[in-house]
Amino acid sequence: MKTSYLTRIREQNPLIHNITNLVSANFSANGLLAIGASPMMADCSLEVAELAQVSQALVLNLGVTSPESIEAMLRAGKAANAMNVPVVLDPIAAGVTQHRIHIIQQLLTEIQMSAIRGNAGEMAYLAGVAWQSKGVDAGSGSANLADIVKKVAQKYNCVAILSGEHDFLADPTGKVWRLSNGTPLFPKVTASGCLLSAVVGAFLAVAEKENALTACVEACATYAVAGELAAQDLLPTQYGSFMIRFLDALAAISPEDVLARRVLVEDKGN
Amino acid sequence: MKTSYLTRIREQNPLIHNITNLVSANFSANGLLAIGASPMMADCSLEVAELAQVSQALVLNLGVTSPESIEAMLRAGKAANAMNVPVVLDPIAAGVTQHRIHIIQQLLTEIQMSAIRGNAGEMAYLAGVAWQSKGVDAGSGSANLADIVKKVAQKYNCVAILSGEHDFLADPTGKVWRLSNGTPLFPKVTASGCLLSAVVGAFLAVAEKENALTACVEACATYAVAGELAAQDLLPTQYGSFMIRFLDALAAISPEDVLARRVLVEDKGN
Amino acid sequence: MKTSYLTRIREQNPLIHNITNLVSANFSANGLLAIGASPMMADCSLEVAELAQVSQALVLNLGVTSPESIEAMLRAGKAANAMNVPVVLDPIAAGVTQHRIHIIQQLLTEIQMSAIRGNAGEMAYLAGVAWQSKGVDAGSGSANLADIVKKVAQKYNCVAILSGEHDFLADPTGKVWRLSNGTPLFPKVTASGCLLSAVVGAFLAVAEKENALTACVEACATYAVAGELAAQDLLPTQYGSFMIRFLDALAAISPEDVLARRVLVEDKGN
Repeated sequence: MKTSYLTRIREQNPLIHNITNLVSANFSANGLLAIGASPMMADCSLEVAELAQVSQALVLNLGVTSPESIEAMLRAGKAANAMNVPVVLDPIAAGVTQHRIHIIQQLLTEIQMSAIRGNAGEMAYLAGVAWQSKGVDAGSGSANLADIVKKVAQKYNCVAILSGEHDFLADPTGKVWRLSNGTPLFPKVTASGCLLSAVVGAFLAVAEKENALTACVEACATYAVAGELAAQDLLPTQYGSFMIRFLDALAAISPEDVLARRVLVEDKGN
Repeated sequence: MKTSYLTRIREQNPLIHNITNLVSANFSANGLLAIGASPMMADCSLEVAELAQVSQALVLNLGVTSPESIEAMLRAGKAANAMNVPVVLDPIAAGVTQHRIHIIQQLLTEIQMSAIRGNAGEMAYLAGVAWQSKGVDAGSGSANLADIVKKVAQKYNCVAILSGEHDFLADPTGKVWRLSNGTPLFPKVTASGCLLSAVVGAFLAVAEKENALTACVEACATYAVAGELAAQDLLPTQYGSFMIRFLDALAAISPEDVLARRVLVEDKGN
Repeated sequence: MKTSYLTRIREQNPLIHNITNLVSANFSANGLLAIGASPMMADCSLEVAELAQVSQALVLNLGVTSPESIEAMLRAGKAANAMNVPVVLDPIAAGVTQHRIHIIQQLLTEIQMSAIRGNAGEMAYLAGVAWQSKGVDAGSGSANLADIVKKVAQKYNCVAILSGEHDFLADPTGKVWRLSNGTPLFPKVTASGCLLSAVVGAFLAVAEKENALTACVEACATYAVAGELAAQDLLPTQYGSFMIRFLDALAAISPEDVLARRVLVEDKGN
């Protein structure tokens, strides 16, 4: 990884347009500032198309599912597609309700995503693989998770990112990376997945289209290693302190920190 | 208190569905994670009935009062009632506007609550007792507060919880508990009342219906003692630090901590 | 500055009604509590007029631009005007989209503001001065910034506040103050500008109308000095820690702290 996309983010401060939910909005904006990007959280359908066109990436978060928000996502997504602005989808709770089944199909039909990032249950739903959508646990077999992420990447012709104890990343060529960094404190902070999706947007904003998978791998590695650094001196119950120190760590982390700690292997599947 | 509901929450990770406002959403979700529950903050009326049915408790927070949100609360509440899922109401600013007078009446008519938790002014409004709704202060007489909470419990046939310097809890049988724990830092953190309502939901999620009052007492005691522990080494002006340490304390607190510190007496009224 | 408005806020706990966005709501409420005010974040158009009338100040934040929110702002603003309740406008991203051009014109036509607080790009837009609305930087000339703020104050007949590395404040008489306090950590915390607007509301809530400029200067000085104190022992990358310590500092700061550190001069313009 000769080019550090992290360094580019800090040099270029890309504007990342997020349409997200009331739980993640503040934390995602602060996390984007910490990584070096410029967050914009506008969600009014009357102006999102204009805003998407001046942004360097668009992040759509299905933690909000009102008809107005979905309309805003559709307009922003189409505008972003027209301008070749990368679009990231966070398919929160995909498949859990009839309404979500409907809207995710609509979004994936009408917008070409650059990356989709979700947990195992969400990605399994998108892959069409049976999965327990509650109590999702990456421990049920890495081979299967690699398979899921590969299927999502091929089905939707984009980078697919499955986050959990291990992260799995694939692109439509079938190449799969497995990243084994992070901390058990991540799932103890609400919207930590949402923020990762936003950070993926920041990395895609500064990457060439053909390097999308590499940029996403660096995004996930930077995020996970920052989590490890933030957790270093904390008790496993210091959820609140971790949330704050993680923002500090995102702002302080260097490309060298990431390279020194990341545990990344190509996953050859079955 | 032989059974610790706190331990059950951590074992069962109940899914707590919250329909809440933009101020409290993030803090409530993080607090629910800290106590050991699994938060879900979905508020779209098109899917809340489905979500309420897969949840172990539903928490309705009147910090949001838009017609869409109230419609979502009504649908979710009726679905929860049909499935015997406990419903908690946080009647924020009840009675303060004509709109709130109308919607709270509608919610209380159409949904059977398991618990209602508010401050003295809100509970006095529900009890039909005259009260200064601004600048509410529990210092104006404990006998009256016990009376208010008893009235609310009997009028709405549920557990009633009045939070303040002292907490008063009653059920429809007329039994009233007074809990004297906490810290002056609580009212200095926005949405600390909202989070308490959500935590009450988590305790009700793991309790038998006939033990609802006991579970609510444990919820309030756990919350108040965690606040005391979080405040221990802080200056009275460290509002921000308290917010973070309180999340740490909620995650770290044990049933033994609660039993060792709680100051709980049965209130015999006048 | 013989009278400390900060002291008055802590004595009177004015109720500050905010109509704001999902990014800033929690942080603004916590910051208002820290300064000693009482926050109310209600945004439903069906009740905002009633609420504005019982409040001591109203703060309108254009981080939210939905038709429902704008309707709520119009109703609340007119009710506040009718009751002589001061109104503060935070014109976030003014002029950036057609929608924002339209709504800001409507708000400024139908509501008399007491103060408008924005960054250089936003204030330049309101002044009708050409400016790069992205990547705004106060370094491009203090004379020009003083000119911008004076124009806004005269055009809208209110106090105008331009925040940045230096803050510039003017009233319609043409008097301009330049305040040179603060920390580079402010722009690293999302909604730190939104919170400043809310704090300006708290200071106006306790000030006589004829002292509005003085109260706004004290608001900005208190805010900036609290930021300096919070940043004192932090690394420049501790964005998360700064956010929390800043809340602590707002709660701890005294009028003497502000007087001892503030760097305030009258700006004579060109």
